Amino acid sequence: MSEMRRRDFMAIAGFAAAAGALSRPREAVAGDPSFMNNEPDPALSGEELPSFKFELERSEGKVIGGSQGKEATVTQLPISKGIAGVSMRLEPGAMRELHWHATAAEWAFVIEGRVRTTVIDPAGGAETNDFQPGDVWYFPRGHGHMLQCLGDAPCRFVLIFDNGYFSEFGTFSITDWIGHAPKALLAKNFGLPESAFDDFPKNEVYFARGPIPPESPTEPLQGWKPPPLTHKYELLKRPPHRTFAGGREWRVDSTSFPISRTISGVVLDLKPGGLRELHWHPTADEWQYVIDGDVSVTLFGSHGRYRIEALSRGDVGYIPQGYGHSIENVGPGTARVLIGFNTGIYETIDLSPWIAGNPADVLATNFGKPASLFEKFPKRDVFIVPEGGPDRPNLEP
Amino acid sequence: MSEMRRRDFMAIAGFAAAAGALSRPREAVAGDPSFMNNEPDPALSGEELPSFKFELERSEGKVIGGSQGKEATVTQLPISKGIAGVSMRLEPGAMRELHWHATAAEWAFVIEGRVRTTVIDPAGGAETNDFQPGDVWYFPRGHGHMLQCLGDAPCRFVLIFDNGYFSEFGTFSITDWIGHAPKALLAKNFGLPESAFDDFPKNEVYFARGPIPPESPTEPLQGWKPPPLTHKYELLKRPPHRTFAGGREWRVDSTSFPISRTISGVVLDLKPGGLRELHWHPTADEWQYVIDGDVSVTLFGSHGRYRIEALSRGDVGYIPQGYGHSIENVGPGTARVLIGFNTGIYETIDLSPWIAGNPADVLATNFGKPASLFEKFPKRDVFIVPEGGPDRPNLEP
Amino acid sequence: MSEMRRRDFMAIAGFAAAAGALSRPREAVAGDPSFMNNEPDPALSGEELPSFKFELERSEGKVIGGSQGKEATVTQLPISKGIAGVSMRLEPGAMRELHWHATAAEWAFVIEGRVRTTVIDPAGGAETNDFQPGDVWYFPRGHGHMLQCLGDAPCRFVLIFDNGYFSEFGTFSITDWIGHAPKALLAKNFGLPESAFDDFPKNEVYFARGPIPPESPTEPLQGWKPPPLTHKYELLKRPPHRTFAGGREWRVDSTSFPISRTISGVVLDLKPGGLRELHWHPTADEWQYVIDGDVSVTLFGSHGRYRIEALSRGDVGYIPQGYGHSIENVGPGTARVLIGFNTGIYETIDLSPWIAGNPADVLATNFGKPASLFEKFPKRDVFIVPEGGPDRPNLEP
Repeated sequence: MSEMRRRDFMAIAGFAAAAGALSRPREAVAGDPSFMNNEPDPALSGEELPSFKFELERSEGKVIGGSQGKEATVTQLPISKGIAGVSMRLEPGAMRELHWHATAAEWAFVIEGRVRTTVIDPAGGAETNDFQPGDVWYFPRGHGHMLQCLGDAPCRFVLIFDNGYFSEFGTFSITDWIGHAPKALLAKNFGLPESAFDDFPKNEVYFARGPIPPESPTEPLQGWKPPPLTHKYELLKRPPHRTFAGGREWRVDSTSFPISRTISGVVLDLKPGGLRELHWHPTADEWQYVIDGDVSVTLFGSHGRYRIEALSRGDVGYIPQGYGHSIENVGPGTARVLIGFNTGIYETIDLSPWIAGNPADVLATNFGKPASLFEKFPKRDVFIVPEGGPDRPNLEP
Repeated sequence: MSEMRRRDFMAIAGFAAAAGALSRPREAVAGDPSFMNNEPDPALSGEELPSFKFELERSEGKVIGGSQGKEATVTQLPISKGIAGVSMRLEPGAMRELHWHATAAEWAFVIEGRVRTTVIDPAGGAETNDFQPGDVWYFPRGHGHMLQCLGDAPCRFVLIFDNGYFSEFGTFSITDWIGHAPKALLAKNFGLPESAFDDFPKNEVYFARGPIPPESPTEPLQGWKPPPLTHKYELLKRPPHRTFAGGREWRVDSTSFPISRTISGVVLDLKPGGLRELHWHPTADEWQYVIDGDVSVTLFGSHGRYRIEALSRGDVGYIPQGYGHSIENVGPGTARVLIGFNTGIYETIDLSPWIAGNPADVLATNFGKPASLFEKFPKRDVFIVPEGGPDRPNLEP
Repeated sequence: MSEMRRRDFMAIAGFAAAAGALSRPREAVAGDPSFMNNEPDPALSGEELPSFKFELERSEGKVIGGSQGKEATVTQLPISKGIAGVSMRLEPGAMRELHWHATAAEWAFVIEGRVRTTVIDPAGGAETNDFQPGDVWYFPRGHGHMLQCLGDAPCRFVLIFDNGYFSEFGTFSITDWIGHAPKALLAKNFGLPESAFDDFPKNEVYFARGPIPPESPTEPLQGWKPPPLTHKYELLKRPPHRTFAGGREWRVDSTSFPISRTISGVVLDLKPGGLRELHWHPTADEWQYVIDGDVSVTLFGSHGRYRIEALSRGDVGYIPQGYGHSIENVGPGTARVLIGFNTGIYETIDLSPWIAGNPADVLATNFGKPASLFEKFPKRDVFIVPEGGPDRPNLEP
C-alpha cells in the first residue's frame, strides 16, 4: 500500500474509530480485565460495617505558626480507600509551597478568607487565580501548584483527593527537591552560579511565610500564558442546582467544569429536619465534610448491615461506591455539608424515583403488602425532604 | 416507544454521548499506571493450569419454594476472577426482588419461559421489558432492577457479571434496606405515617412470591419514562452473525447493543463433530455455559501448560484473557454454548487466519518443515470447522 | 483572558480533545473506583529510595546459537512494576517465532541491522513490515507477531512492554501450543491428515533458525490484507521534535503514531555535559535504556529521598510516575538514551517553566530569598541545557 493510499485509508478508519468511540461509554470500557482489581475490600467484607466517621477538626494535624493542615486518609479512616481529604488553614502571609501530588488530583472548596493559587500544566500553560468562599479549584494529578493566603485575615479550605492513600509518599515539594539536589546540577539547570543556591532551604518548607501578597496577581516570570481549561469554578456564586422546601443543592462536575475529570462536588444545605433521601451512587465513593450543623448519616451495606453515625461541624463521613445512605439535619439550624465524589460525572439513584419507576403490583409482590399502599408513595424524586415530609408541588424535574 | 422512534431517539442520544466523551479526558486512560494492577494472578502462575470447569447445575444454590439461584464465583471456580455467573429459575408468580449490584454489571440470556424486568437509571428513566427465550438484557453496575416470572410456566435464565467476586457483599436488596432503616426515617422520606411500614419484611426477601403478573406491563407510579438506551436485545430473533457447515454463531456487543458497555456475548451452535477452532481473545476473559450437548474444551496457558476439560449441559468453563482455547462438540447431537466476555467490544484472534496472515517461508522456518506443507493450510478464517474438516467454499468474510 | 475569549479558546481546545479521544482507545476512564488500585507500592514506601538501575547487557539472558534475549522485569529490577524491557539480538536467518503477549503491548526500537515483522489483528488484517535502525513498531496486547533478522548481518533491538511483570507466564508461542495440542484436533482444525503434524516441535522453539529470508516480503497465504493502522513508525528518519544547543529529542506517541495507544517513546541525544533538566511525568512511568554514552540520573522521591545512579551503555533506569528526575551526560562523547513511557500521550512538566510560571514574589516567599534572584532564572522551558548553562536564544516554544 503506498504511503498516500495508506493515509487515505487511515482517514477513513479514523472516522470509523470515531463513530465507535462515540457510541461507547466512559466505563471500564472494553476489556482490559487483566488490569482490573475486582477483589473486595476486606474493610467492607466483615459481618459489621466499619465506622465511616472521623472527627477531622479535632485531630492534631501539622501546625506551623498560625497555619495548619489536618488530614483524613486511610490511616485515620480505614474505610476511605477511594478519597482522602484535608482541612487547611493559612495565616496571613502564609503559603502552602509549590508542590505536586504524584498519585492524586486535588479538588478544593474555600470556606473562609481568600486564597491565591498558581498551577502549571504539561503544555507549559500556567494560571493564577484568586478564590473567595464558595469557590472551587481542581488540579489534575501531578500538576505543580501553590496555595497562598490573601489579605490580612486567615483563610480556610477543604481539599479532596481522588485517592484515600494520597498522603503517604505522594506529595512532592519544591524545597525538598531543590534542597537535596547537588548545587552543581542546579547551577547548570538554571544557568546561575552555584552560590545562587546558598542558603536555600535544605528540607521541605511546607508552609512558607512572607509578606502579605500583592492584592492583584503579579505577572509570572514567563508572562501570562493561560491554559486552555480554567482551574477555577465559582460554585456558590451560581444559583443552586435545585431548591426544595427542605433545602438546596449546588453541584459541579466535568459537564460544567471541564477540567475536573476525576472529582465532582456538591454543597448541600439542609433546613432543620431536612433529609437528603435514601440513595446511592453507582459510579463513585462519597466523602462528606460538615461545614455547619449536626446531621445523622445512615449507611446500608447489604447482608443486613446497617450503621448510623452522628456528624457535627468539622467531622468527616465516607460512603463506599454503591452503598445506600441518607443525610438528615438533626440540629436546630441549617446544616451545610460539602460532598466530594471520585468521578468526573455525578450520578445518583434515589429511592423514591426507583419505587416510582415500578408499577404498584410489582411493589405489592416485593413487599407482600397491598398495591394500594404504594399509590401513596411519591411519584417523583423527592431528593431533599422537608421536616414535614415530601413537598411535592415544589419539586422540579 | 416504537422501534422506529427509539432508533431516532438513540441517534440523538448518540450525539449526547459523544459530547460527553469529548468533554471527558484522556486521564485514567492510557497513562494512569499508578492505578493499574499488573501483578500476575497466583492462580495462573503455577506449573500446571488449574481446573477451569464447574458443574454449576449440580451445585446446591439458594432455593426458596420452586425458585432457585446457583452461582459460579471465585469461591466455586477460583480461576474465574473476571466473570461470575448465575443460573436462575423462577416459579410462576415469583420475583427476584428489587436490588442492585454495587460492584458488577449484569448481562442475561433467557433459556426457558418468559421474564419481565424493571430497571432504573441515574437520570430517573425507568424501563419495563418482557423477555422470551433467546433474548438478552444488560443492566449497568449499580442500576436497580427486578426480575419476574411471566405466565404460568417457570422461567430459566443465565446471568453473567463482569466481576468474579460479585456475590460477596455486593448485592443490595430493597427489603434488606427498608427492613433495617428506622421507621421514622422512612416515614419522612416518603411522607407517610410510620405505621405504613408496619409488617414490612425485616430481612432480605430475595425471591418474593405473589400472583402471576398482568400479561401486559402495568404503568409505573411515575408514568412511562423510558431511558435513552434500551436494556433489551433479541439475540436469537436475528439471523446468526455467521453460519458455517459445522455450526453457527450469534454475537452481541456494544456495537449492536449500545448499553452493554462492559459485557458481550455469543451463542454458539456446534453440529456433531463441529469445532470452534483454536483461538484467543486479546481483551477479555471468557465464561462458558453449556446450554445443551457435550463439548471438549482445550486450554493453552504458555510454558507447556495444556489442559482439556469435558463440559456437559449445565457446566461452566472459564478461559482467562489471552489464553489459547478451542471448543469441540464431542456428543451425538447439536451442542449449544452460551459465552460471555468482560468487554464491550468482542475481539478474537483465530489460529487459521494468523497462519494465513504469514508467508509460507516464515512458517517453514518457524516449524522447521517444508514451505509446501503450509500451502495446504486454510487460506482464511475457518472459525467453525465441521466434522470433516474446514469447509472452505462455505466460509464468509 | 476575557471570559468570552476563554470560551472561544475552549471551543477550539474541545475539538482538539475530541480528536485525541477518537484516536484513543477503549481503555480505562473515570468513575469506576471499585476497580482502582490506589494502594502505594511497598517498594516505593520505605525511608530510602530503592535502586532504579539494572545492568541489562551484563546479564545472562536466554541464548540460542547466535541469538539472545536479555530482560529487565520486576524480577531483575523490583521498582519497575509499570514497564518491562528486553534487549534482543538475532543472528542472520534467526526468527523470534510467532507468539503473543497475553498481558502486555510491545513497543520496539531498532538499534542495529534489519528486522522483518508480521502481525495479525482481531479483524483478520495482517501486516508485514521491514525495519531499519531508528524505526519503531508497536503491537497491541494479545496481537500475534514474529520478528525476523533480515540480511546477512545480525540485528539488535530493544523491546518495551507496558507491564513490569510481563514475562511471567504471559508469552504464548505457536510451537508451544501446536506441540501440546492433540494431533486429531489439529488435523480437524486445518483439514489435514494427522501425519501432517508429525515431527512438529514438541516444545517452544523461541528462536527458530532457517535460511536468510527473501529480500522482499513474500505474500502471506491469505494475500495482502493490511490493517487500518500501520504498526511501523520511522522515528529517526524524521527531524527531531526539538533541537537545543545541548542536544536534541525525537518523540513519538499516539498523536503521531495512532496505534501506539499505551506506550510512547523518546530518543534523547545529549552532547557532552548536556542535561535533560529536572522534570517529572504526571501520567507515566519512565523506562530508560542507554544506547550510547555515560549519564548521571537523579531521582527525587519526596520526604527527602534522593538518589543518583550512573548509567552506561546497555544499562537500564526506571523512574516511577510523578517522581522528579534529570539525565546528564557525564561522559566524553554524545550520549543517546532510549526512553519508553506507559502512556499513549506523552506529557512532561519541567522545573524551569514551572518556576517561570510563577511571579517572583511567590518564589521569594517560597524560598525565603529576595525576589530579584528569581528574575535571573530562565523565563522559558530549557528542556536540554548545554554544558555552559541554558542557551536561551536557541530555545523553541
